[in-house]
Amino acid sequence: MPSLNDATGRRVFFGGDYNPEQWPEETWHEDVRLMKQAGVNSVTLGVFSWARIEPRPGAREFGWLDRLTDLMHGNGIGVVLATPTASPPPWMGSRHPETLPRGEDGSVIWYGSRQHFCPSSPVYREYAAAITEDLAARYGDHPALRMWHINNEYCTFCYCEETARHFRRWLRAKYPSLDALNDAWGTAFWSQRYGDWEEIIPPRRAQYLRNPACTLDFRRFTSDALLECYVAERDIVSARTPRLPVTTNFMAFWTGQDAWRWAEEEDVVSVDSYPDPRDPLGGQYGAMIQDMTRSQARGPWMLMEQAAGPVNFRGVNHPKPRGLNRLWSMQAVARGADAVCYFQWRQSRQGAEKFHSAMVTHAGEQGRTYQEIKQIGADLSGIGEHVAGAGVSADVAILHDWNSWWAGDQEGRLSRELDHPAVVRAWHRALWEAGLATDFAHPEHDLGAYRLVVVPHLYLLTDTAVDNLVGYVRGGGTLVSGFLTGAADGDNRIRPGGMDERLRELFGIATVHEWWPLEAGETVDCDGPEPFEGTVWSEELQASTADTVAVYSSGELAGLPAVLRRGSAWYVSTLPGPAPLRDLLARVADDAGVRPVLADRPAGLEAVRRGDLLFLLNHAPGPVTVTVPGHHRDLLTGEMTDGPVRLGRHGVAVLKEERP
Amino acid sequence: MPSLNDATGRRVFFGGDYNPEQWPEETWHEDVRLMKQAGVNSVTLGVFSWARIEPRPGAREFGWLDRLTDLMHGNGIGVVLATPTASPPPWMGSRHPETLPRGEDGSVIWYGSRQHFCPSSPVYREYAAAITEDLAARYGDHPALRMWHINNEYCTFCYCEETARHFRRWLRAKYPSLDALNDAWGTAFWSQRYGDWEEIIPPRRAQYLRNPACTLDFRRFTSDALLECYVAERDIVSARTPRLPVTTNFMAFWTGQDAWRWAEEEDVVSVDSYPDPRDPLGGQYGAMIQDMTRSQARGPWMLMEQAAGPVNFRGVNHPKPRGLNRLWSMQAVARGADAVCYFQWRQSRQGAEKFHSAMVTHAGEQGRTYQEIKQIGADLSGIGEHVAGAGVSADVAILHDWNSWWAGDQEGRLSRELDHPAVVRAWHRALWEAGLATDFAHPEHDLGAYRLVVVPHLYLLTDTAVDNLVGYVRGGGTLVSGFLTGAADGDNRIRPGGMDERLRELFGIATVHEWWPLEAGETVDCDGPEPFEGTVWSEELQASTADTVAVYSSGELAGLPAVLRRGSAWYVSTLPGPAPLRDLLARVADDAGVRPVLADRPAGLEAVRRGDLLFLLNHAPGPVTVTVPGHHRDLLTGEMTDGPVRLGRHGVAVLKEERP
Amino acid sequence: MPSLNDATGRRVFFGGDYNPEQWPEETWHEDVRLMKQAGVNSVTLGVFSWARIEPRPGAREFGWLDRLTDLMHGNGIGVVLATPTASPPPWMGSRHPETLPRGEDGSVIWYGSRQHFCPSSPVYREYAAAITEDLAARYGDHPALRMWHINNEYCTFCYCEETARHFRRWLRAKYPSLDALNDAWGTAFWSQRYGDWEEIIPPRRAQYLRNPACTLDFRRFTSDALLECYVAERDIVSARTPRLPVTTNFMAFWTGQDAWRWAEEEDVVSVDSYPDPRDPLGGQYGAMIQDMTRSQARGPWMLMEQAAGPVNFRGVNHPKPRGLNRLWSMQAVARGADAVCYFQWRQSRQGAEKFHSAMVTHAGEQGRTYQEIKQIGADLSGIGEHVAGAGVSADVAILHDWNSWWAGDQEGRLSRELDHPAVVRAWHRALWEAGLATDFAHPEHDLGAYRLVVVPHLYLLTDTAVDNLVGYVRGGGTLVSGFLTGAADGDNRIRPGGMDERLRELFGIATVHEWWPLEAGETVDCDGPEPFEGTVWSEELQASTADTVAVYSSGELAGLPAVLRRGSAWYVSTLPGPAPLRDLLARVADDAGVRPVLADRPAGLEAVRRGDLLFLLNHAPGPVTVTVPGHHRDLLTGEMTDGPVRLGRHGVAVLKEERP
Repeated sequence: MPSLNDATGRRVFFGGDYNPEQWPEETWHEDVRLMKQAGVNSVTLGVFSWARIEPRPGAREFGWLDRLTDLMHGNGIGVVLATPTASPPPWMGSRHPETLPRGEDGSVIWYGSRQHFCPSSPVYREYAAAITEDLAARYGDHPALRMWHINNEYCTFCYCEETARHFRRWLRAKYPSLDALNDAWGTAFWSQRYGDWEEIIPPRRAQYLRNPACTLDFRRFTSDALLECYVAERDIVSARTPRLPVTTNFMAFWTGQDAWRWAEEEDVVSVDSYPDPRDPLGGQYGAMIQDMTRSQARGPWMLMEQAAGPVNFRGVNHPKPRGLNRLWSMQAVARGADAVCYFQWRQSRQGAEKFHSAMVTHAGEQGRTYQEIKQIGADLSGIGEHVAGAGVSADVAILHDWNSWWAGDQEGRLSRELDHPAVVRAWHRALWEAGLATDFAHPEHDLGAYRLVVVPHLYLLTDTAVDNLVGYVRGGGTLVSGFLTGAADGDNRIRPGGMDERLRELFGIATVHEWWPLEAGETVDCDGPEPFEGTVWSEELQASTADTVAVYSSGELAGLPAVLRRGSAWYVSTLPGPAPLRDLLARVADDAGVRPVLADRPAGLEAVRRGDLLFLLNHAPGPVTVTVPGHHRDLLTGEMTDGPVRLGRHGVAVLKEERP
Repeated sequence: MPSLNDATGRRVFFGGDYNPEQWPEETWHEDVRLMKQAGVNSVTLGVFSWARIEPRPGAREFGWLDRLTDLMHGNGIGVVLATPTASPPPWMGSRHPETLPRGEDGSVIWYGSRQHFCPSSPVYREYAAAITEDLAARYGDHPALRMWHINNEYCTFCYCEETARHFRRWLRAKYPSLDALNDAWGTAFWSQRYGDWEEIIPPRRAQYLRNPACTLDFRRFTSDALLECYVAERDIVSARTPRLPVTTNFMAFWTGQDAWRWAEEEDVVSVDSYPDPRDPLGGQYGAMIQDMTRSQARGPWMLMEQAAGPVNFRGVNHPKPRGLNRLWSMQAVARGADAVCYFQWRQSRQGAEKFHSAMVTHAGEQGRTYQEIKQIGADLSGIGEHVAGAGVSADVAILHDWNSWWAGDQEGRLSRELDHPAVVRAWHRALWEAGLATDFAHPEHDLGAYRLVVVPHLYLLTDTAVDNLVGYVRGGGTLVSGFLTGAADGDNRIRPGGMDERLRELFGIATVHEWWPLEAGETVDCDGPEPFEGTVWSEELQASTADTVAVYSSGELAGLPAVLRRGSAWYVSTLPGPAPLRDLLARVADDAGVRPVLADRPAGLEAVRRGDLLFLLNHAPGPVTVTVPGHHRDLLTGEMTDGPVRLGRHGVAVLKEERP
Repeated sequence: MPSLNDATGRRVFFGGDYNPEQWPEETWHEDVRLMKQAGVNSVTLGVFSWARIEPRPGAREFGWLDRLTDLMHGNGIGVVLATPTASPPPWMGSRHPETLPRGEDGSVIWYGSRQHFCPSSPVYREYAAAITEDLAARYGDHPALRMWHINNEYCTFCYCEETARHFRRWLRAKYPSLDALNDAWGTAFWSQRYGDWEEIIPPRRAQYLRNPACTLDFRRFTSDALLECYVAERDIVSARTPRLPVTTNFMAFWTGQDAWRWAEEEDVVSVDSYPDPRDPLGGQYGAMIQDMTRSQARGPWMLMEQAAGPVNFRGVNHPKPRGLNRLWSMQAVARGADAVCYFQWRQSRQGAEKFHSAMVTHAGEQGRTYQEIKQIGADLSGIGEHVAGAGVSADVAILHDWNSWWAGDQEGRLSRELDHPAVVRAWHRALWEAGLATDFAHPEHDLGAYRLVVVPHLYLLTDTAVDNLVGYVRGGGTLVSGFLTGAADGDNRIRPGGMDERLRELFGIATVHEWWPLEAGETVDCDGPEPFEGTVWSEELQASTADTVAVYSSGELAGLPAVLRRGSAWYVSTLPGPAPLRDLLARVADDAGVRPVLADRPAGLEAVRRGDLLFLLNHAPGPVTVTVPGHHRDLLTGEMTDGPVRLGRHGVAVLKEERP
């Protein structure tokens, strides 16, 4: 199976989406000059070129793309070639309106934007396969070609009749019988029992709450239907170029795809990551996405898209202050990226994203953004050979599962204030602030390599996952679980007792009497080794064999256990504030023999070890000084350091141990 | 006409919705054990069993229900049998899509939830009649059967073409001619005059404000269309079992049904009531619903649904602290309930309401919830014979009319901050805190039995209602009216002068110059015997023969009358804060010879007299002590008391006078 | 071309919409009595009379209107006759559903309100032309007729198939070829290139952001489609009565019409203006609308609609305190109105606007509102001969262009906090508070007559407009521009450099590095001659030849220029708070030789000069005293004044210089 290394040739890819069809050809040459000046060595072409290549059904216009790929090659710039199937040309929606998706309310989602295809549409799939085939045939042997990029940010939901038929086929494949489906969906409730497969429809607009298991299966189906589209195109290009890796770009922590499942079908895992420049914890957010993507990739990965400056999809879109782009780019490399790319090379003058920044902004070559891009290019070029292909090792894993997110994040749930990704982020933040290197894993993965496994919140756990967790602890692992974990089985069916019996035994819990969600902003006092405040959630529990580590000390649950421990299995029934959660995890990690990358760190200083390099990244609002034992050379400045390292705001150092 | 007494046999029903089709039959026997242990004597079956009974059109599967009703009977548990027509099986929507309702925007409201039927659909009605007929035939003579429960929480709105035809038929029956309709609707405005009955449609999505009289009639029609569905099924079961009472369960203060009108068609009035456990005035809310339901029933009534713990339809769903379920259950009995039931017996593991609590929760027999249920069952069993069938008498009536709510709560109204039920609740709260026993009544009811009649706000009053109020005061009654009352006639037509002339004369008002609504949170100072703050509303009035009791003392109306009085007719042109409104009503009530149930009560202590029992209910956040003159036995503890009674948090005492 | 003077005969029109079809004919005579008592000299008839005139397709019922126009004429009241085409009768939507508009989601917008017509519908247009023709034929020679009023508040958006066809025709007329359209719309982005005109659709519901240039063109098209409807009816009536002026009423600052373009097609420009009585700056808002309308009219204009009291389209609708109606009416005259009219004469008892106030409210003749109306009528009658036809001259112009608003106010923009009309209003407020008489102008207008031109924010500027501004400054004018101006060209295409090169040269700006929008409520410190706070926006600029007048002194841009000046061209890259913006503009104006109408004014006192009259208008919360040099007679009181003039709350004086 080809890998990212095959594409990069042990460098770090630096570049971005390049959409030259928006510009006259004279601009292409200017682009090449600026790319070379900035050290760009890879561009992604063709992401939105369908209408340009196929202006009429069946037509092919490849001349411009021939000239472009040749131009790139002639200037030493590699090409990642995309299939253009994320945005069909207007003629498709116009001639084949059945390819257009429909919303929950049945209304058509028209062309005029992008992603206006129903993934179940055979017409769409045929056209997509045909153009993929022709692209692969024409460019498969082109010397500039490094990798394939399929579609873009798969994210369509559709509720049309074709989707209904496809959903039924998917369900027939999953369930041995209609009775099995009725049982799994609990259709006895509210008289929803299906008497015929043909009666089943997507969870469309309804009077009131819809069936939770149907909704869960529909999310699984939608992820799978999109995955089928991906696999179909991947198989076409792989057949032509078996030695070139294939990817499709995930959106960071996007709800619509079971990314664990998708990653298994990719040669290279790539992600689009857009932390908010205004978020004081934007660095932590980026680290989380990077840890997640590296774990899905099981090795080096590709930052397919980031923004050099502001985006245009937030309500208020803030630029990146000087140095932030570089800091976050180096952070991606520190956490395992072998490719640092942007959407996009040159900022569009027209179209829906004309306010989305780019490597070359409207301000052009003299703009601050491009000036910083040049420095990043130089930096990456300097460290590329030292990091490309190297790994990042972690003793801690955070468990995450899209199925649990989907099952928990439904209408009619216990609390609208339970925001699944926010809870995961709170736990990742605690580990990040504790300076602990962290992977992500799926609850059914082999966890034996980790000393500490953390479950922020997994409402749904399959039997296999439960057994996996129990076995992990029995095998000597340390497990810390957050609230409302193991409440439902794989069908979104509440387990008797409100928590799986094996887990209750693992944690030493006799009875889960009630879940007590908290209002937005509400806190509950807790008393343990240190007093702390819980947020979001609390639970009325009765311990059996557990030790009570902390109790609730205010509210209706005063006196009842808040944090329980049975041996190396911990259960935290609320979400502690940032500092207490960090301290708790640091303590448990220490007990489990897990140490931070760097012992003493000033606040905001992130230290990451990749291969034999130590990255120091300053996320603090001002300069910091950090002491690094031993003698190192900073690969960015070339200078030696043997103790205190001073980093300006947004400063970065990449240290390699050297004899003094 | 059969009554609730016929069903209960002078006990208090205790039980709930029982949906055993969600469970294997072995669980049924476990259920029976737990029911008997908890004193459950009544279950409601079949509410959502349509697809189970009729898995294919015309099929009938009654075996399971035969076994179940026999099982209940064999264990001494009575059955309330529901027609399952609130949730048609998927085959109906699939085979007969015209039975599905459509929203204001014309989009289909699909099956997959519940209540997915257009009440005007003849196909739906035919299927509903057939299954009702067969249920009545099969179980009409079953010895376990105590009562019929038709459908569930009628609440559908539909705007489809079938509805349009039905609406037209309803209008033809109401109006003698199209001219009469055009006149009543004021279609001269905005060129809306109808030239043909066929042109009339429901108030669907439009550019701007829709016709207020059309909107009002459409709400009346929708209530009536649903009532037709109810009556059709009721007539079928009544024909088979003329001695068994029939009910359908209202949602508490639900906007969609004119519950006064519906109650006339019911043998038993039943209600679903879900006060928020987090609401410090949840007890008052419950009391209001209970007073309303008792008044509709004109005697004992049925609490068809309450929650033993959290519900799942609030944003954040809070459990009930220990004792609260018992407190609110006893409160219902105090205020006239002869049946205390729950949704539902056993908490569902699957389906849209798996987080909605039940008598037996996920925690099972050892869960706190079931333990408390057992106590409630024992308590009710102990007091049942003393209360069942007894009445609650009140000297005060609050007037409420759905027509006025519908007419006032429309787009293009004076103030979005005027929340009709919130205003009614504010007035009920004042009377509740003043300790005054209160009924509800319709403005056209005979009010002669009351010493004090209170109108929180009735924007619309028919001529009959106006005459009724005037006659009531002339006959010696005391009337206190809130703001914006009598502004519109029965067609939602503003009366000349902005308030009915007879009412202006009654209150001594010369001119209503302007209505001055207040912003959210805004108050206006008022000066009278005591200064107070008005909220929500104020009015620019000119008195004629009225005495000015209080004047506005801030804002644009400073110096103008705020509260007016002409003899025993009071007009309060703003909404005073809770304490001043309570004090005003207490004073007026005292003048009218109305006394509280118990003279001195600590805050939060509710005292209710039912028959010869005195219920003491502690809604305060901690224990309270209250002095009750005379010698009583507390039926819950069996102990005598002759003065101070101490009630813990959520505590209840049920006192019966005895010789010492 | 006929003008407003031709209609008014050098008086001030006083009156309003009169909808007597809502009332029995006996009320008409009462109306006439009250009108005459109040000095009403003009009523607008027929605005919503279509169903009354044409109760069935093709029928005509004119008798009532004959009697009415005769009645008006017999009592000396002029008639403005409206075509009733804003609200087709129900039979049209019922018989011709294709005349009904459709929303972005494709769902029908039904009749039952008003404006339920697709402006592209040929069926609607035919019926509209026919009734217009017949009205013109019947009443063209009626002696009461003074003016034509076409339709009412044109404001429909439609996305139906007929609209799609019309949009394509409009585009074919605009663009020489499909290639030209593809180029103008930037369809290379996201694969949106059209291969056939027939593929083009309105910007309907889509997955994500829609094409900005398509959206802009669709807004232009919609404005033009409505304008076609207007022109068609205007041409019909003008052909019959070439000497009578024609108007249609704008909604104040309404986004849907390019009012500059529309005004060119009107003989009389009229507007509906509804400042919020609760807004402490309601007077400024009114002034802005009046300045805008006068500028569009290039002379006297008509206040077609205002409210005598509360409206019913705000969430909470507040009445006007005593005197406010008069103050705002006189303000309109001061700023050039020759007609002060209301919606409506008599408050409706029924229909969607029964809570919208009127000259005669529900309270009737004794109501405060009508009493104040009488005074206003008397006042206007007294000053009419002195003002009618006179002009208001201004040395300052504010530039505004609907195209820029449309282009900037789109999804995917830089900041949702950038509210175009709020920014315009902030700049107008600054000038209003500085006491400077101000016109509005279009950026392509000849600006030579102004000493100072102010651009609050024009994101889009055509090449012609840019040249116009540059030429204006070269010609000696002073220009002050707000932020994000000149960023896009006429096709909504970002100009290279992020600001037009000619403008950058004009302002002395080298590079626009980034735009830095601010969050709601966020401010940025600025330091210049006086420190001030910027709001809404900031920009990262590099000056070339500009002087830096003020710099940012907090945040990421600290030290960079905030306000730049190159000669008489100023660029303000943030929105200063009200006082600093007022002071800045006052200073610049003073430098440019522009003086306030009155040198020393207490806060809230507005002074306006019209012809040889000086209007003093007190918007302050209490009485004020102002010193006016010279000897004047107050035309309202008849008294002389030679220095200090005292005005009560909401007080007005109309001074005419006289020899003492």
